[in-house]
Amino acid sequence: MDFLKARGVVYKPADEVDLGPESDEVYIRANVKAPRMAGLLVKVFAWLLESPIFGGILLYFLKRNNLIHKLVSFAELQEQPLFVPLHPYQEIEEKEAKCLEPDMSPPEKVQQAVDCFQSLVDDVLKSPLLSFRRWTIMDYARAYTSGETTPRMVADRFIAYVRESSSQYLQMSFFIDFDVGDILKQATESTIRYERGEPISVLDGVPIAIKDEIDCMPYHTTGGTKWLHKVRKCKNDACCVERLRLCGAIIVGKTNMHELGAGISGINPHYGAVRNPYDRSKITGGSSSGSAAVVAAGLCPVALGVDGGGSVRLPAALCGVVGLKPTFARVPHEGVLPINYTIGMVGILAATVEDSLIVYAAISGDLSADQSRLTVPKIYLPLLKSANDTSSKIIMARYGKWFDDCSDDIRVCCSKVIDKLSDKYGWKTVEVTIPDIEVMRLSHYLTIGSECSSSLASYLEKLNKEEMGWDVRVGLSVYGSFNSHEYLNAQRIRKRQLEFHKKIFSAADIIVTPTVGVTAYPIKDDAIETGELDYINGAALVRYQIAGNFLGLPAVTIPVGYDKAGMPIGLQFIGKPWSESLLIRAASAVQALCISEYKKPEVFFDMLAKN
Amino acid sequence: MDFLKARGVVYKPADEVDLGPESDEVYIRANVKAPRMAGLLVKVFAWLLESPIFGGILLYFLKRNNLIHKLVSFAELQEQPLFVPLHPYQEIEEKEAKCLEPDMSPPEKVQQAVDCFQSLVDDVLKSPLLSFRRWTIMDYARAYTSGETTPRMVADRFIAYVRESSSQYLQMSFFIDFDVGDILKQATESTIRYERGEPISVLDGVPIAIKDEIDCMPYHTTGGTKWLHKVRKCKNDACCVERLRLCGAIIVGKTNMHELGAGISGINPHYGAVRNPYDRSKITGGSSSGSAAVVAAGLCPVALGVDGGGSVRLPAALCGVVGLKPTFARVPHEGVLPINYTIGMVGILAATVEDSLIVYAAISGDLSADQSRLTVPKIYLPLLKSANDTSSKIIMARYGKWFDDCSDDIRVCCSKVIDKLSDKYGWKTVEVTIPDIEVMRLSHYLTIGSECSSSLASYLEKLNKEEMGWDVRVGLSVYGSFNSHEYLNAQRIRKRQLEFHKKIFSAADIIVTPTVGVTAYPIKDDAIETGELDYINGAALVRYQIAGNFLGLPAVTIPVGYDKAGMPIGLQFIGKPWSESLLIRAASAVQALCISEYKKPEVFFDMLAKN
Repeated sequence: MDFLKARGVVYKPADEVDLGPESDEVYIRANVKAPRMAGLLVKVFAWLLESPIFGGILLYFLKRNNLIHKLVSFAELQEQPLFVPLHPYQEIEEKEAKCLEPDMSPPEKVQQAVDCFQSLVDDVLKSPLLSFRRWTIMDYARAYTSGETTPRMVADRFIAYVRESSSQYLQMSFFIDFDVGDILKQATESTIRYERGEPISVLDGVPIAIKDEIDCMPYHTTGGTKWLHKVRKCKNDACCVERLRLCGAIIVGKTNMHELGAGISGINPHYGAVRNPYDRSKITGGSSSGSAAVVAAGLCPVALGVDGGGSVRLPAALCGVVGLKPTFARVPHEGVLPINYTIGMVGILAATVEDSLIVYAAISGDLSADQSRLTVPKIYLPLLKSANDTSSKIIMARYGKWFDDCSDDIRVCCSKVIDKLSDKYGWKTVEVTIPDIEVMRLSHYLTIGSECSSSLASYLEKLNKEEMGWDVRVGLSVYGSFNSHEYLNAQRIRKRQLEFHKKIFSAADIIVTPTVGVTAYPIKDDAIETGELDYINGAALVRYQIAGNFLGLPAVTIPVGYDKAGMPIGLQFIGKPWSESLLIRAASAVQALCISEYKKPEVFFDMLAKN
Repeated sequence: MDFLKARGVVYKPADEVDLGPESDEVYIRANVKAPRMAGLLVKVFAWLLESPIFGGILLYFLKRNNLIHKLVSFAELQEQPLFVPLHPYQEIEEKEAKCLEPDMSPPEKVQQAVDCFQSLVDDVLKSPLLSFRRWTIMDYARAYTSGETTPRMVADRFIAYVRESSSQYLQMSFFIDFDVGDILKQATESTIRYERGEPISVLDGVPIAIKDEIDCMPYHTTGGTKWLHKVRKCKNDACCVERLRLCGAIIVGKTNMHELGAGISGINPHYGAVRNPYDRSKITGGSSSGSAAVVAAGLCPVALGVDGGGSVRLPAALCGVVGLKPTFARVPHEGVLPINYTIGMVGILAATVEDSLIVYAAISGDLSADQSRLTVPKIYLPLLKSANDTSSKIIMARYGKWFDDCSDDIRVCCSKVIDKLSDKYGWKTVEVTIPDIEVMRLSHYLTIGSECSSSLASYLEKLNKEEMGWDVRVGLSVYGSFNSHEYLNAQRIRKRQLEFHKKIFSAADIIVTPTVGVTAYPIKDDAIETGELDYINGAALVRYQIAGNFLGLPAVTIPVGYDKAGMPIGLQFIGKPWSESLLIRAASAVQALCISEYKKPEVFFDMLAKN
């Protein structure tokens, strides 16, 4: 039993650790020991990993060199495992917020959301000073109501634009599937409702795209693969899709994604590498790559994604849109591919914070009886006023060493926003230490890997490996290599990290970080067919994401600027459990500060342009 | 990746399975393929399993031959994992019951329990018809109050008897440690309280023994090993021990147990094989072997144990005493060795049902904020009346094929009791099918193994293997061999089984089974030094235990008779979550039917005998 001889870190009990700014806890930079691989190299690597004896040895050294053994597998911890980040609900005092009644229908909830920012929209979003802004849900609703355009005309335009985006020239690879007949049918019905003066809600006729990890009729759910839909049939809309339909939204198709969500570049060997609307030669990030890109490119004001390791926030940041990942179990998970049990959550990609609020209201509320709690968390929506009017001062926790572990452009840009929030609104920043961020990343990797491997095992048995992408074959080999002891130790680290975060939140409302450590980087030619393994960039992309998934905390990313190459930069707020209302209020304030500098992407489709 | 090629069972979704008596679900008998091993054979087997390459291959075939691969590891399931059997609390209508107020002290709770059966004791337990009965808590309290004896005199007698039990002739191996000074100090203090006429509760001065898996000052917590206390110091009383102390109980020492709870024979190579008071040549069962034996032998009316796979109920049945394992999280787990996270629970071994009720009242109530629920389950105590007076008819679910999968003596004896319950009280039996009992046993084994392996890993690293017993070395090799995928699949089976049990409980109040499939069997000479591996008897011993642990359901065993060799037989009731009150009421009714036939063990110490 080799593992008995290995040495692990001995962690102090969480409550004995100093989380103040002067803490002697060391910030461990991701020390990823793996070269970038693509093309033939990935193929060879996959073969080696899949070989019976040598594969096992290789995996052992991979895990050891990447400190998984030392920091997780053989670590000594006092904490007991926390398996599911299901937070007890505690009433949060929300002064400037509406509380949704549990028996409201989705359209009623949407109306409540709209009422929350009525004054703000006219105040800020319509300002003539804006050099660029995307069309919002309210723009669609007004254009339909006024008769300027109709859902049917928008649908025609949408179909034409998607075709254009798929042209030989653009090759944006936004969608895995979209059904012209189904889109036109929905659009026609919506048009008739408007003609009768009976739209269901402001979402009526609004095009919304769905990540191909979420069940949505009449489409397959491929999960970005060429095979999953053959062994798992999609029989119904997922709960979140059903709620959008009830509001009248036009479901316009299934967006491209990193195969199985098992990577974050968004390069899919079967359905194409999704290209960043701000620079076609660069990645969108993933795994909700298509959902981020269609919003960035103006095709939809909103799209749904699933966030298991930053998969909503990360591509949102790289594509310059808003990404909102609610608290674990806030949005029902029914009808989402069961790829990972305890860390995956439906999230929202949107052109503006207000649009994310509307869709958040429409899809929230998990009444599933099958949760170990009787108190259903209340859903609050923030009353958004003109930003300067924000009376509530917010306290932001910032861990300097972690915050600064990103590219210079990102650091400078995000720091400036924090300074502005202080200057303009009087928000405060408290310096803190959040220990073992890198340990949490490794534990999360081990967890998502184990859960993915377990949920797919019965399908993989029957599968011809040739049907899988090469980078995913490598991923699945690593995913399947963890033992139950390592899995349990990772859950002990989950518990430990939750204790840290609870303590941080006793002194701050939100944690502020950049959303990602690097901006979108080039799609290299050798990666198109095989995908690529780039664990160094990968670690930088997920650096700030993990608490949102592993601890189930709500988080939001807001576009705040661009790097020197013109690629978008996002700022992230991580909140207490069930504090979405505060997060959205904070995000709205940031948006008000930054919206005047938003830039139009290289690839943009003006859905409501006047002919 | 060998496992991708293996074939697993495809399970129907739980809600499509027929649980009626005519169901076509097949009852799988435990098909254990492993010979009994002891002595040199165990040593060789341990060496082989611990060897780097061959060990792995051997483990693979062990798991495959024992159907773990087919039934668990590679099975296909629809259910998502259930990691922790933490049940939401739902108000149970309990007519003839008292509800404890949350702010009551342990002595107040004890008094409430006593009030519940005041009339019954005089009615039944004092009947002159009884050929034998053990002294109860009330007997001690009365003897102290009347001045017949004192706690100090009882302590002196206790110390003399324990020494006698350890003599060369008896070699009962009841205790791992007992501290004469500490016992006398407690007894003297209690004696003074009685002299002043101020006993704290009926537990004042009552000797209670604690399994050496539970922290209890001034003792080490060895967990039955020679090394664990060297790396993990005991610094405080466990919460349950503290509560007993608050009631005035005399904590009389740490009882012997199967090493690490990793077996159920109760044969401990370091501290001796615990011997059954009904026949010194036979096992007590385990792992709470000493706790069952001291109660059976009359040394204490009550002892605490920990039940991770029947470890309280199983030795209780084999030793002819009552064993009560409350619902998961009913009794705080603080201060219990963290050997398994999700299936281990403190349980009570007692001479009578009423004594188990008193101690249940004293130690129940887990107010730990660290549970994912806000509604703290209410604690009800049943109002016990003369058994014939039992007005509430109870509906028992019985799965015939499972019920009958035990020795002839057990089957006949338990069936007779069920008939009597019907005749005397009008209880009903409904025939049901509970599918995949054997699958649940394997999944539980995989889970307890993984959790034990994980929780001990950091200690084992530093350990010289020579300090461990041979059977436990074999156990730990198997325990450490599961991967995270198998662990997760076992949790999916947990969820599936909970669905089955929920459905059964919608039509019945309790599930009735024999407690074990075989009665106590001989301790063979070759097992004394090495322990023994007897997976066939092992499977029979845990056959009816698993739902209590894996699903966290409350369960109780009551002595109901003896086999032809005179070894005790237990009947088990398994209840709905939080239904201890009903279970205790049902157990009391069974006791009333059977108590007149209780027999005195071969080894018995009469603690309250008049000189």
